[in-house]
Amino acid sequence: MIKVGIVGGTGYTGVELLRILVQHPKVRLKVITSRQESGMGVDELFPSLRGQVALKFSDPAQADLSQCDLVFFATPNGVAMQQTKKLLDVGVKVIDLAADFRIKDVAEWEKWYGMQHASPELVAEAVYGLPEVNREKIRQARLIANPGCYPTAVQLGFLPLIEAGIVDVDHLVADTKSGVSGAGRKAEVHTLFAEAADNFKSYGVPGHRHLPEIRQGLGARSQKPVGLTFVPHLTPMIRGIHATLYARLLKETDLQALYEERYIDEPFVDVLPAGSHPQTRSVRGSNFCRIAVHRPQGGDMVVVLSVTDNLVKGAAGQAVQNMNIMYGLPETMGIKHVPLLP
Amino acid sequence: MIKVGIVGGTGYTGVELLRILVQHPKVRLKVITSRQESGMGVDELFPSLRGQVALKFSDPAQADLSQCDLVFFATPNGVAMQQTKKLLDVGVKVIDLAADFRIKDVAEWEKWYGMQHASPELVAEAVYGLPEVNREKIRQARLIANPGCYPTAVQLGFLPLIEAGIVDVDHLVADTKSGVSGAGRKAEVHTLFAEAADNFKSYGVPGHRHLPEIRQGLGARSQKPVGLTFVPHLTPMIRGIHATLYARLLKETDLQALYEERYIDEPFVDVLPAGSHPQTRSVRGSNFCRIAVHRPQGGDMVVVLSVTDNLVKGAAGQAVQNMNIMYGLPETMGIKHVPLLP
Amino acid sequence: MIKVGIVGGTGYTGVELLRILVQHPKVRLKVITSRQESGMGVDELFPSLRGQVALKFSDPAQADLSQCDLVFFATPNGVAMQQTKKLLDVGVKVIDLAADFRIKDVAEWEKWYGMQHASPELVAEAVYGLPEVNREKIRQARLIANPGCYPTAVQLGFLPLIEAGIVDVDHLVADTKSGVSGAGRKAEVHTLFAEAADNFKSYGVPGHRHLPEIRQGLGARSQKPVGLTFVPHLTPMIRGIHATLYARLLKETDLQALYEERYIDEPFVDVLPAGSHPQTRSVRGSNFCRIAVHRPQGGDMVVVLSVTDNLVKGAAGQAVQNMNIMYGLPETMGIKHVPLLP
Amino acid sequence: MIKVGIVGGTGYTGVELLRILVQHPKVRLKVITSRQESGMGVDELFPSLRGQVALKFSDPAQADLSQCDLVFFATPNGVAMQQTKKLLDVGVKVIDLAADFRIKDVAEWEKWYGMQHASPELVAEAVYGLPEVNREKIRQARLIANPGCYPTAVQLGFLPLIEAGIVDVDHLVADTKSGVSGAGRKAEVHTLFAEAADNFKSYGVPGHRHLPEIRQGLGARSQKPVGLTFVPHLTPMIRGIHATLYARLLKETDLQALYEERYIDEPFVDVLPAGSHPQTRSVRGSNFCRIAVHRPQGGDMVVVLSVTDNLVKGAAGQAVQNMNIMYGLPETMGIKHVPLLP
Repeated sequence: MIKVGIVGGTGYTGVELLRILVQHPKVRLKVITSRQESGMGVDELFPSLRGQVALKFSDPAQADLSQCDLVFFATPNGVAMQQTKKLLDVGVKVIDLAADFRIKDVAEWEKWYGMQHASPELVAEAVYGLPEVNREKIRQARLIANPGCYPTAVQLGFLPLIEAGIVDVDHLVADTKSGVSGAGRKAEVHTLFAEAADNFKSYGVPGHRHLPEIRQGLGARSQKPVGLTFVPHLTPMIRGIHATLYARLLKETDLQALYEERYIDEPFVDVLPAGSHPQTRSVRGSNFCRIAVHRPQGGDMVVVLSVTDNLVKGAAGQAVQNMNIMYGLPETMGIKHVPLLP
Repeated sequence: MIKVGIVGGTGYTGVELLRILVQHPKVRLKVITSRQESGMGVDELFPSLRGQVALKFSDPAQADLSQCDLVFFATPNGVAMQQTKKLLDVGVKVIDLAADFRIKDVAEWEKWYGMQHASPELVAEAVYGLPEVNREKIRQARLIANPGCYPTAVQLGFLPLIEAGIVDVDHLVADTKSGVSGAGRKAEVHTLFAEAADNFKSYGVPGHRHLPEIRQGLGARSQKPVGLTFVPHLTPMIRGIHATLYARLLKETDLQALYEERYIDEPFVDVLPAGSHPQTRSVRGSNFCRIAVHRPQGGDMVVVLSVTDNLVKGAAGQAVQNMNIMYGLPETMGIKHVPLLP
Repeated sequence: MIKVGIVGGTGYTGVELLRILVQHPKVRLKVITSRQESGMGVDELFPSLRGQVALKFSDPAQADLSQCDLVFFATPNGVAMQQTKKLLDVGVKVIDLAADFRIKDVAEWEKWYGMQHASPELVAEAVYGLPEVNREKIRQARLIANPGCYPTAVQLGFLPLIEAGIVDVDHLVADTKSGVSGAGRKAEVHTLFAEAADNFKSYGVPGHRHLPEIRQGLGARSQKPVGLTFVPHLTPMIRGIHATLYARLLKETDLQALYEERYIDEPFVDVLPAGSHPQTRSVRGSNFCRIAVHRPQGGDMVVVLSVTDNLVKGAAGQAVQNMNIMYGLPETMGIKHVPLLP
Repeated sequence: MIKVGIVGGTGYTGVELLRILVQHPKVRLKVITSRQESGMGVDELFPSLRGQVALKFSDPAQADLSQCDLVFFATPNGVAMQQTKKLLDVGVKVIDLAADFRIKDVAEWEKWYGMQHASPELVAEAVYGLPEVNREKIRQARLIANPGCYPTAVQLGFLPLIEAGIVDVDHLVADTKSGVSGAGRKAEVHTLFAEAADNFKSYGVPGHRHLPEIRQGLGARSQKPVGLTFVPHLTPMIRGIHATLYARLLKETDLQALYEERYIDEPFVDVLPAGSHPQTRSVRGSNFCRIAVHRPQGGDMVVVLSVTDNLVKGAAGQAVQNMNIMYGLPETMGIKHVPLLP
């Protein structure tokens, strides 16, 4: 059994980790921390977990994380980078669901996240936890930077085109739509029901933090740096990401075959039949990414449609997938949930 | 392994049965029928099931159900009563998720359902599949009448009061709210998104088919027939039932203790701490019924709050719970899903 | 032209007042205050008002409200009671959309609202602004206590029964459902989209502040004090209140005729044909209250269904209706909006 | 007073026309037809219109449309083209809200709409009713082809760029999102609440009927034919269109000034301040189109954000705007509704 701790368990990635881990056959939850809810039963805050978990939230200052084999950080950006070194030093592995270790260029990270990095020396060591790209490195890793929600859906959608070198990488467009849970469980006006329901808007068009992450990921698989226009939108649903990706085709290719071959061995990437339109609900509550590739009217524009559940493949599910790989378990263990439809 | 067939697998109770059964460790799905979608892959209609099930919908006229140990009817009312006799005769057990065998008084059934009953002789044999009341009978049954969604939430909420004989049973009130999936996957104007979203309404106030079913269930546990005012409402959410129940208290009682004791051994009924307000999302995708009991301002009115997922404990989950009981399996096998929150 | 000020214009009742008043033919908006947004253009905060209003939010400490003929308080409870005396003294009339002057029994008010009343002497003078009951008093009033959203829907629904003295007033039940905008535009976790969407729950079952207000209003029209069980619920829609009311009938009455006669001259109360089920969207964005009355299966329980838009007839629209009456204008002036459907 | 008829008044564009026209100061509604609901009171079908309109739906076969000055067709595609000639011949003007007269190339129309055109000779005469382009022609027109919902939002968003000739018109991208009311009030499974809520998907990626309409409209203002990739999506809200438009900039330009100047005199096109993100709810229930223009990170990609209410500026409101122009009325008469927010 893997002894697991969760730091910052009161947000949506925290409760989603709990939903998965309480039924994972190889995990024993040892500790879960929360500054604000310290002392409260986990199932008091999240009644969905009644009967599933007996833990209380511990004060982070008191919690003994060194008893764990693995600690998940489900904290705001900037927390994991303060505490990871100490844990690694005593042999505890770390998976950070926030952004602290995602960007290799520390200066770039500091620019986008508006703070100084506390552990730049760990950035180089951290493995970017996208199994479809880095499975072998994940297997050996002590420290995983779990990808962002948009970056997961966008990279999985673009990768076959980029790796094949068949599109104009200077003018990629990613038009992405996220459910509101992506904004987290913070009390803010713009994500109130009466603000976000029956409404649709873009945000962060001048620049969003997931842009450098996606550029880094795609750039690493491309022959040259990628130029990406990335426009995120907020859509009135709880969970789900839909990425609509546009790229100009430079070379005749059987796109359907390209995608099917790229992902044939991937347990969580599902290439739909030609002509399909994936729906976010087809992955709700599950770790799947479903992808369709189109070439409208046979022109030179490729349109890729990629859907995930932002809290599962976009966060907690992928983190558990990484854990499974790190510990040599079957990669799908504990994350085989059938999507909830309707 | 139990060889299972599903008749009528294209509705919401059908797809929910599939979600559960494809991962049930003791079930082998043999056949699933659909008149309209015959020949189509199940996962073509329901992309959430891609990779989970290889079956195609069979034409009901061709399907060999006699190879099954158990057949679920997830059909409109009036279908199971035509086919059940033949199946029972060849040793196949039946669980009907529709209403054909729920009402013991055949004339009453015919009045509310507007058709003649095709198998009145089976009505007496059928066991009403509410495990919290009929567990022993279910164990022996060949034919289960799986309860309606409202009747499950309302009966579980009222039963402790009724059985204890401490409320005025002449003037019970059940004000119930259902998500739109309760209306099924039929193309109708009033359940279109643009009709049902951002809207709230009652329906069936003059009389709803679940009224006689609830009256029968409560009456059987009461010292006299119950008088019930039942008002269902449609609420703009996909899944979930919230029953708000009102009864006049005739005798001082520790209500919290009464409820906790009544359900102490029930794996799927969760009595919340005093003062709680259950939310439908705390049971979303799960087989739980969560209940809270109140006595506002210490007056003589008891208010019971009872929530379920209409497609799970209100339909497919309860059907599988009944199957588990019938086959001597652990009652919770395959239906331990942690609710999906948020 | 009536010179109008709004104190506290950044909440939902504030923006709804603005939506109505910017097109009211007899109103000139002079000042709108906000502590937090002082200096910001009204249409910057509410882009729906671009091109409709040139005002900026003023600092409440600086704003000269004495230039107004009438001031609306769209503030949290406890603000209007601090400032009203000063305004009345200089001849400015006041309509308070909060609860400061709604409850005649000051001790009762202080108990439910948890603060000491700053102007108990004004409570007696204040007129409860439900035109269907107090039209003549409103005409003469300097100070209006605009009713709460639930109290409006519940009182209009119960009044014909209460006034006719034909129901058991000791055991009234009001099961009410509100859209999330009723909770206001405050950043709170429980009204986030990801918390409130696809979810249904009750709240305040042990006691809600609108209970004493409804009891007072109904009690004043009854031959004896009323006993009311009041259970509010949160439903995943933006606007709308649906009150489902239950009362035991003591005397044979033509209920449809009773309701139609009671409201025959009321411009904003619409009694639906017998057998109807009003929908909240049928009043969305409008000042109407639509009511249907049922007697299921001819029994002794009356069920009344009453719907309003909580921000219009339940708040800003009713406030403007009161203003129209106070100033001798046609009662419907500026509030004739056709409901937005779908 | 303009005597107005509506053919096909039971859909969403029909009820929206009614919402607007019943309060238009220069319109007298004479007749409204419906094959299916003939004889039913309009306010029976749409309770939002109770007290607003006394008309009943007439049988199209019996209705005397020749008494009208103007007839709106709010019918499915293919109806108006059958009846328009007869009306024009007796001096009745026609505004078709469907697609019958939108595409000048009849063969192209027949390809996309899958039927033979019944009045090809009228196609040339019909004026495409986008006032921001064709105001003068509309003034003289007998027959208006009212634009589609997507084409309105997309053309208004792209026009300043196209007319200025500063972008690569060979590779335009329009990623558009629509509320579900855009699919009409037809009973279909895919627009049921339980299918469309909490879900996001694209549709029609291989080719959507609004593509040739947009290409025609933009092409007419461009120096050469435009190449457009058009991807529509369904978003879980009732009303609203959000178009996110991408074009490669070929020439340095002050984009904000370009947009402001282009629309400075347009009463219904609102260019937001630089850096804005328009929300669909900021135009809900109104005839506005709000637009923002961005150039992320100062690169060569222009991103335009354009929002409308699909039923107002995207259908009924624009139709009334066209009527106002045709009859020399103030262009904003009867369509000055303040958007409903929240």
